Amino acid sequence: MIAGIICVGNELLSGLIENSNSGFLARRLYSSGIAVREVNIIADQDSIINDSLAKALDQCDLVIITGGLGPTEDDLTREAVALYLDRGLILNEKWLARMESFFASRGVIMPENNRKQAMVIEGSMLLENERGTAPGLFIEEQGKIIVVLPGPPNEMQHMFDNKALPLIKQSNSGIQSLVKTLKCVGIGESLLEEKIKAYGQWNFAPLSYVARGLEVDLQIKGSGSLQAAEAEIADAEALIRKILGDAVFGSGDDTLADIVAALLRGKNKTLAVVESCSGGQLANQITNIAGSSEYFMGGIVAYSLESKVNLLGLSRAKLQAEGAVNESTAVDMAKAARELFRSDYGIGITGLAGPVSDQSKKPVGLVYIAAADHKKTLCREYIFGGGRQAIKERSSQVALNLLRLMLLSD
Amino acid sequence: MIAGIICVGNELLSGLIENSNSGFLARRLYSSGIAVREVNIIADQDSIINDSLAKALDQCDLVIITGGLGPTEDDLTREAVALYLDRGLILNEKWLARMESFFASRGVIMPENNRKQAMVIEGSMLLENERGTAPGLFIEEQGKIIVVLPGPPNEMQHMFDNKALPLIKQSNSGIQSLVKTLKCVGIGESLLEEKIKAYGQWNFAPLSYVARGLEVDLQIKGSGSLQAAEAEIADAEALIRKILGDAVFGSGDDTLADIVAALLRGKNKTLAVVESCSGGQLANQITNIAGSSEYFMGGIVAYSLESKVNLLGLSRAKLQAEGAVNESTAVDMAKAARELFRSDYGIGITGLAGPVSDQSKKPVGLVYIAAADHKKTLCREYIFGGGRQAIKERSSQVALNLLRLMLLSD
Repeated sequence: MIAGIICVGNELLSGLIENSNSGFLARRLYSSGIAVREVNIIADQDSIINDSLAKALDQCDLVIITGGLGPTEDDLTREAVALYLDRGLILNEKWLARMESFFASRGVIMPENNRKQAMVIEGSMLLENERGTAPGLFIEEQGKIIVVLPGPPNEMQHMFDNKALPLIKQSNSGIQSLVKTLKCVGIGESLLEEKIKAYGQWNFAPLSYVARGLEVDLQIKGSGSLQAAEAEIADAEALIRKILGDAVFGSGDDTLADIVAALLRGKNKTLAVVESCSGGQLANQITNIAGSSEYFMGGIVAYSLESKVNLLGLSRAKLQAEGAVNESTAVDMAKAARELFRSDYGIGITGLAGPVSDQSKKPVGLVYIAAADHKKTLCREYIFGGGRQAIKERSSQVALNLLRLMLLSD
Repeated sequence: MIAGIICVGNELLSGLIENSNSGFLARRLYSSGIAVREVNIIADQDSIINDSLAKALDQCDLVIITGGLGPTEDDLTREAVALYLDRGLILNEKWLARMESFFASRGVIMPENNRKQAMVIEGSMLLENERGTAPGLFIEEQGKIIVVLPGPPNEMQHMFDNKALPLIKQSNSGIQSLVKTLKCVGIGESLLEEKIKAYGQWNFAPLSYVARGLEVDLQIKGSGSLQAAEAEIADAEALIRKILGDAVFGSGDDTLADIVAALLRGKNKTLAVVESCSGGQLANQITNIAGSSEYFMGGIVAYSLESKVNLLGLSRAKLQAEGAVNESTAVDMAKAARELFRSDYGIGITGLAGPVSDQSKKPVGLVYIAAADHKKTLCREYIFGGGRQAIKERSSQVALNLLRLMLLSD
């Protein structure tokens, strides 16, 4: 089954609203074994909706349209789809009554223009909207499926998962493909591809690669029946893990922070961080995880020289003579993190996030990252590119990975 | 001038990567008076790139293509565009040398497959990539413009703003509309609209509103010649600023952190922060700004009870009796920030980011935010919804706004 997604809305083309609907739908369809051929973001204009729908139905088995189901004059999707299919619009008395009682419960009389939201396309199935007034539509047309969904993400997502996807799955019982993502780190996209190629003839499931900062997502695609696809993926995964070793840190939606969290929890250990150039990025990433207060004791962003001396107890003379961007400072910061927060593990990050260097004239992007436990400290030197925020993010990724490797070997 | 945007990448159709490029480009083009007709998200497949490009060039004066410029085999955009235009690819020796020295500076030999990133389309202008190895291309073809940009947002955005947009603007001198965005905070979207409506008949440039977390973007649209559009916007802006006062914190891409930075620099003052529930979010936002080390002394993420006692000097007995989420703790944290980092201003944030409460059983989302200078401390209580990350982000927004209002009145 091949799908097309059409997102309708002038506000998407002016950038006023960030379009998250296509990403959500793509993710859901893809992991259900339905490939998305194309996403089209278009204006609230019936001729454009008509053209986009014609093209999508020509190339796809399933077309999902979001947006343009509101009560105002510029909401045209329902009418444009009916016109394209040459079907009429029929008042759905049940939905009208539900809308009226919805407004009544808020002590308001339903505005007249909401009435058109109860108009459904002839021969379609109404998909109830539990979070708003615009219902969706499920339409079968010459062996193909058209699903019309409201634009607001919270309405659309809930309706898709609960009403539309079960109906789509019924029509798509013969699974054709499944995808599993392995998350890799510490090895570039090119080198990773080369390593796998060096293994020899690749007779397993097809692979694709996406770089995210310092991480690479490696997708394995299995085909055939559910069982065959799963077996194909399992074979490829086993081999890839053998080739790449601990460069594979997880799968699916795992983040480095998730994996570090699981390792710390599993060993019942705690963590603290002292950051300079990453400026709170690492602490922020760690605390985005629910329950992090159980193992994360806290952090210090020691930006000024004074704070490095007064809070961390580093030597003012040494910092003034040698600068703050070097291995020994990173090591001292990691140790200070453990001591100040009384944690089992400590991380220290010092570097130059730019855009300009300091008095030391060392290159922008130079970062030293250290991780310490009770008996040893590891430190790595990197030069990152990509601008200030990328340098901050990469420093945090490397720090989490260094800690992960330390936790794995401890 | 009408534009089309094509985003190329299998990872966008599998939902692996959230597509933020089309939203960014739409916003930028819209505020330069260039309407976007359509966005097309398509696979890394040359026949599909070919079809999409043909359609876009048929309907638009400007086509922007992002993605597919990487070094791996599935990166095909450069080749597909060359093929469509029936032009050759030429090795750009200068870019090759730059890539080689880039890899050499990291102590690595350039992988052979990166070489294709130095291939440029005949007759095109190379757009330098200051944040990665894939250069962009600016191509003129039969009175139309094609701009090819890399997929990673940090590379794409920087290249678009600095290299591509100036060239596009040169080709688009007959402006038809301009948009200016005023950034507002501390007032909801509805109330903001009501306040402006209460002013009376609005005979000025048309307005639109978009809420983003606790901020509202107010867009003013001016039309006609460049001069007429600018004058129309200026009149409306002056009136809006009179009506809304200091609820307007900036314009365009200004963030609260930018504005606070400018105020601190202007007054030659310094800042430090002590965070609990926001977990480094605030420090991270502040340090995303280039040059923040001049006024930001640092921060502490005091997550554990121990760190609140040992590092901040708060009373263990009081914390145990009353919990950590209350006004007096926020005030003490703001004061501790000033003292520990010897800064002019201090911020303290304590609250419950969830997903579950602590022993106090206070509601998730309850946050106390304090700002202190040498003579006073302000504190605000909020209950935020929207889940853990939204609570962290909103806490930081409110903290920056509280500090902004304090700086304005000092």
